[in-house]
Amino acid sequence: MTRPNSILVTGTVAFDSIKTPLAEMDEILGGSATFFAMAARLFTTVQLVAIVGNDFPTHHLKMFDENGIDLQGLVRAEGSTFRWKGEYEENMNVRHTLETHLNVLEQFDPVLPPDYRKSKYVFLANINPDLQLRVLDQLESPKLVCCDTMNLWIIHQRSDLEKVLQRVNMFIISEEEAFMLTKRTNIVRAAHEILRLGNFSLIIKRGGYGAILFTQDKQIFAIPAYPLENVVDPTGAGDSFAGGFMGYLASNDSLDLEAIHRAMVYGNIIASFSVEGFSIEKLATLNRETVRNRLSDFLRMTHLVPTAVHVE
Amino acid sequence: MTRPNSILVTGTVAFDSIKTPLAEMDEILGGSATFFAMAARLFTTVQLVAIVGNDFPTHHLKMFDENGIDLQGLVRAEGSTFRWKGEYEENMNVRHTLETHLNVLEQFDPVLPPDYRKSKYVFLANINPDLQLRVLDQLESPKLVCCDTMNLWIIHQRSDLEKVLQRVNMFIISEEEAFMLTKRTNIVRAAHEILRLGNFSLIIKRGGYGAILFTQDKQIFAIPAYPLENVVDPTGAGDSFAGGFMGYLASNDSLDLEAIHRAMVYGNIIASFSVEGFSIEKLATLNRETVRNRLSDFLRMTHLVPTAVHVE
Repeated sequence: MTRPNSILVTGTVAFDSIKTPLAEMDEILGGSATFFAMAARLFTTVQLVAIVGNDFPTHHLKMFDENGIDLQGLVRAEGSTFRWKGEYEENMNVRHTLETHLNVLEQFDPVLPPDYRKSKYVFLANINPDLQLRVLDQLESPKLVCCDTMNLWIIHQRSDLEKVLQRVNMFIISEEEAFMLTKRTNIVRAAHEILRLGNFSLIIKRGGYGAILFTQDKQIFAIPAYPLENVVDPTGAGDSFAGGFMGYLASNDSLDLEAIHRAMVYGNIIASFSVEGFSIEKLATLNRETVRNRLSDFLRMTHLVPTAVHVE
Repeated sequence: MTRPNSILVTGTVAFDSIKTPLAEMDEILGGSATFFAMAARLFTTVQLVAIVGNDFPTHHLKMFDENGIDLQGLVRAEGSTFRWKGEYEENMNVRHTLETHLNVLEQFDPVLPPDYRKSKYVFLANINPDLQLRVLDQLESPKLVCCDTMNLWIIHQRSDLEKVLQRVNMFIISEEEAFMLTKRTNIVRAAHEILRLGNFSLIIKRGGYGAILFTQDKQIFAIPAYPLENVVDPTGAGDSFAGGFMGYLASNDSLDLEAIHRAMVYGNIIASFSVEGFSIEKLATLNRETVRNRLSDFLRMTHLVPTAVHVE
């Protein structure tokens, strides 16, 4: 049932409580691995390496399963599922963490099922970098390893994070995190400094302003965000971007620069759907045709007409 | 000597005193009409309608003249030239006005020389909307009138500003101003609300994040900014954008949507040069070849390769 290039993801599966300027939601399905998996499943099967508590309802497991998400690597432990509570400011680009309850995450020791170790495409979603390293140690010969991180690890576990960065091909973070990591405020300077931490390419996500790629050989590729009238909840936008991005690459099995550019556009489009609803409500109903239609719109909104792609 | 489609601009010619996190400059040449003219002169001749005091040095007039900027409409009055003092925050996207001395601007009553009245391409750069209206009243049959504005007029002279907006084809403002004008924080909603103020197309400038066009029939076109490692002084970026934008349109004499998209890219590129130096130092030494080279770079950084511009 697993197609050749499935994607392995490790990260969190959580219950989120979220306050936006317009609404408040309690204990909805969230977590970095959840959003990633529900985005990437549009392209290929996903192997989910995560932990939940015994409070995690069966209907979510069923939903994952029905969406081609392999649950062999999902540990169900005694105790409560990880919980996160956050609040967004008026413009939705700034958020504050109100509460974090690690719960079963504290005892998580990811052990990959044997056939997961051969995975070629791996996403280390936002989770403690020590856990990201433990997953990395079990991989036999991955072709593409991407990772994400967050402010907490940048501040409190920088040396583990830097060990992860030495071993990945792609690093995807938010602009705010890039600035935090480098204490800079210019995106090009921040990017050059981050690129020196390893041999990866870097994608910096700019929220409602798009995303930008920097490679080791100083290539840049920038895209604006898809303009949205209704941003309901930005939670998971970055993971959805990564899911679309890696989903495209894994299903096409090409890592040339042009494929990476196209993958960024797919990531961008899938993230734009994700933020139009709470939790995974939009991702869960999304299909490839809807993605293709918005992608066409996006190209019309961002690309000069072919006859005009010349320098006068 | 004047080519058919010269551009008329009215706005300020000023002495700016500017503090950035890295440097401080006193009494350097600035003003909305100055930046616009020095950008647009790369494409065509410019008719400058503005006022300066008798403290305005001859070498600046000579510099304008040598750059194909027609000075028949520049009034030299008794008194001091308009002065502005501002300070930029660390990230260069936020600025604060410290001082404004209108000086001779208070007595400015723009009277267009007879052959200026026939101008087809007109930019009402940032200046009191009452003065923008007085210039509009003297135009015979313009083909494209664009205008800009600023927080001061949005707050204190909104009804005059709205009168201007009823009479223009294009409105170019910053994202911050768009949010201030509508009390919204979502760019699509803000744009739709602003579009209802007239029959113009709207370009919202997003500083280091690019620019986005909204038309009356709901077409959108978005471009990221050219990524810059050295932002020296953002003053005049918006006027330089407008200068490149209108310069391209006037010199090609086409207002179809594809021409407007290309013009945005030119505006974007010329603004990127402008902010790499103080005052007009970069614009003054810029030539078309340098612009074309960066434009090629920009297309490589933002456009999927032509064979990839399809929806799989």
